[in-house]
Amino acid sequence: MNAPHAPFATPPLPVALLDALRADFADRCSTALAVREQHGRDESVFDVPPPQAVVFATCEADVARVVALCAQHRVPVIPYGAGSSLEGHLLAVQGGISLDVSRMNAILRIDAEDLTVTVQPGVTRRQLNEALRHEGLFFPIDPGADASLGGMAATRASGTNAVRYGTMRENVLALRFVNANGDIVRSGSRARKSSAGYDLTRLLVGSEGTLGVITELTVKVHPLPEAVSAAVCSFPSIDAAVQTAMQVIQLGVPIARCELLDANAIKAVNAHDRLGLKEAPMLLMEFHGSEAGVAEQAAVVQDVAADHGGEAFEWATTPEARTRLWTARHHAYFSGLQMRPGCRAVTTDTCVPISRLAEIINASIADVEAAGLPYFIVGHVGDGNFHMAYLLDPALPGELATAEQLSAQMVARAIALEGTCTGEHGIGLHKQRFLVDETGEQAVAMMRAVKAAMDPLGIMNPGKIFSA
Amino acid sequence: MNAPHAPFATPPLPVALLDALRADFADRCSTALAVREQHGRDESVFDVPPPQAVVFATCEADVARVVALCAQHRVPVIPYGAGSSLEGHLLAVQGGISLDVSRMNAILRIDAEDLTVTVQPGVTRRQLNEALRHEGLFFPIDPGADASLGGMAATRASGTNAVRYGTMRENVLALRFVNANGDIVRSGSRARKSSAGYDLTRLLVGSEGTLGVITELTVKVHPLPEAVSAAVCSFPSIDAAVQTAMQVIQLGVPIARCELLDANAIKAVNAHDRLGLKEAPMLLMEFHGSEAGVAEQAAVVQDVAADHGGEAFEWATTPEARTRLWTARHHAYFSGLQMRPGCRAVTTDTCVPISRLAEIINASIADVEAAGLPYFIVGHVGDGNFHMAYLLDPALPGELATAEQLSAQMVARAIALEGTCTGEHGIGLHKQRFLVDETGEQAVAMMRAVKAAMDPLGIMNPGKIFSA
Repeated sequence: MNAPHAPFATPPLPVALLDALRADFADRCSTALAVREQHGRDESVFDVPPPQAVVFATCEADVARVVALCAQHRVPVIPYGAGSSLEGHLLAVQGGISLDVSRMNAILRIDAEDLTVTVQPGVTRRQLNEALRHEGLFFPIDPGADASLGGMAATRASGTNAVRYGTMRENVLALRFVNANGDIVRSGSRARKSSAGYDLTRLLVGSEGTLGVITELTVKVHPLPEAVSAAVCSFPSIDAAVQTAMQVIQLGVPIARCELLDANAIKAVNAHDRLGLKEAPMLLMEFHGSEAGVAEQAAVVQDVAADHGGEAFEWATTPEARTRLWTARHHAYFSGLQMRPGCRAVTTDTCVPISRLAEIINASIADVEAAGLPYFIVGHVGDGNFHMAYLLDPALPGELATAEQLSAQMVARAIALEGTCTGEHGIGLHKQRFLVDETGEQAVAMMRAVKAAMDPLGIMNPGKIFSA
Repeated sequence: MNAPHAPFATPPLPVALLDALRADFADRCSTALAVREQHGRDESVFDVPPPQAVVFATCEADVARVVALCAQHRVPVIPYGAGSSLEGHLLAVQGGISLDVSRMNAILRIDAEDLTVTVQPGVTRRQLNEALRHEGLFFPIDPGADASLGGMAATRASGTNAVRYGTMRENVLALRFVNANGDIVRSGSRARKSSAGYDLTRLLVGSEGTLGVITELTVKVHPLPEAVSAAVCSFPSIDAAVQTAMQVIQLGVPIARCELLDANAIKAVNAHDRLGLKEAPMLLMEFHGSEAGVAEQAAVVQDVAADHGGEAFEWATTPEARTRLWTARHHAYFSGLQMRPGCRAVTTDTCVPISRLAEIINASIADVEAAGLPYFIVGHVGDGNFHMAYLLDPALPGELATAEQLSAQMVARAIALEGTCTGEHGIGLHKQRFLVDETGEQAVAMMRAVKAAMDPLGIMNPGKIFSA
């Protein structure tokens, strides 16, 4: 396997391709450096040359046309939604065209009776929820960033509500996508279940742009709960917080969100949002249901928390108070960055069976404290998934190497504990050898066989998940 | 595409293969006609020659050995679990070896803290639930038959609890399988979510034995609810029953089971189990939760049912009373067959968005009544899925043709209503052209490309999902 940072030989873009794109797309095809650079960078730390051109699609036919032209000229196509990837998915490691679908942002249908919506791939989760609110519905998947639904499907995203509502894996019912030949393919339907042939929908979900460009998604939505309440509770240790989460899940409490923030993360959000929270490990929880149901869930969780030394719950029952708490959670990443001005973050994403979660978090803290890097932790602990962010001074290149070594240790530990190297961010550029460690050569060989069968020219976001 | 009933040229089994199988498996390799015939028939109406030999595997290495030998000799391998398929999955349409995994029936691990279990593929759902009961856990997926978990995964099965707990698609976390080369492949992990590469687990789930032989499954299990209650309610029409189910789902009531039986099905179960139920469309429902939560759910559903002319609920709160009702539901199929002694049934399996369910059921009833065939209906209406069983006299071959025509009309209608030709039974032998109608030539071409990449010799259950 090539190292992801090996120098790639990027041939110049064929003149005939650029001429054809300009003829078809006029000012929606750009080679301006600023536009290309904006499309050649994401939230990751990778630094590679930008794509050679950017095309802004406004419809499925545009996408099909770009892919067909790129296939004809053997040039890479890199789908671009909101640019919020964390694993280098958008980077033009082999050159090529960034295909920006952010203007394909129409909400096509809301079928409230069936609890489904159909959207273009550039629709973002906030935009969708804004439109759904008036229908008494919501789309639960919340990865933090205001990501596009196409990108969320491509990375199999999840986030804070997954413990109750599942991830993109469970919530995408149907797709339309353009395959590597430029053909338009439909998979799935609005029916909630089906046994009709291979699950192409689930194959595209998490394929990171390497099998096709998603042009339309039908996703499940949910009725807005009659009652919602949020609570925070501080614990004497991370163990105590994680044990609480685990017992709550085991008891079958349908908790909607169950987020861990470590003391460092609390310090950061206190500094950023003046929250005045106790600087100790904290669970931030949300309950959805009827008035009585929410109260009952909360009572069970309070009992369990008290057994583990949790302090009295602090409640947020009004929408404003809840928004304040969840804004803090959403700001945790950027608040954390501000704890070390000028820093960049390397963020881990392991996920393990919940019974092993305290073990991996504690071992990872011991490692990072021994190494002396600043860090903070946020976690979707109901799922066994957590993120440790290492805060690096870009002027000290040794810190990146240290962070990568810590991250590799954590992944090895997650795999030994029957977990995964990535709960929700994807493989991208930098976890390719971890994928092999996790699932084995045989499984990766089968993934490569699927890739070769569906993209024989290797033009769909090449170099991601595995090198060509 | 070849018609599934076209005569297949089955070359005799190579002597070298049979010698090798006998050397390795001794009396676990059988060519006795009775054994072969038992493995060459399922619950479907298809009639083809039996497999040429049956091998009983007792471990993963056995499976790998059989597949490797069959690959060497280019002979089909047909995985066999409990034999309860309804779509001809087990039939040796191109000859070959039936690979019986029913003796691989060990429950390998119960990880109660993580709500996961790991089993061999021959474990049946009743066996698993028997073992889980002592742990306070249950496995929700209930297709009616006491199917094997390997077979349930291979057909993406679901059943009565899917409305709340999902199908095999949502509940399989990890697999081990033997691919067409005889290699052992691992996919997924015990982590509840992952973004690590292509979703081979979901690709195998629903692949009907055409991509590999499942040798181990890790599935989600759930805590036994604190309280369970079941209720039946009769309605003046199928419309009224379906509207009730739809509103209950829309209100976000986490109903655990929501089954429709039409008046014919009620007549059948009354005759078979002496239930004395009113012979009108009926919903059979189950609620899981806390004592208070179950009562609250039931109250909401009673209100909705009353709005649609539902009669007073008849409750079953004791385990014995619930078992009696659910036994009736599980017996519906066989009770129905007894309404026309000596008959065989052709069972449909369409699934549509729930808002279109009443429309397709009513139109299908009009069609079957015009055609004059006896029938009954059971449905997982919370999911939009229903089964109409046509009861055929085998002595009247015209009836099979009529049933097939009615079934084709129903499928065309389901597809027009944005649904699927199969909610939970699979494509098998007889729905291959419906798959093309439903998802289009482009998607089926991609499925075929995946098949060719993963099984280049075409030995894995050939002739199922699509013809070779």
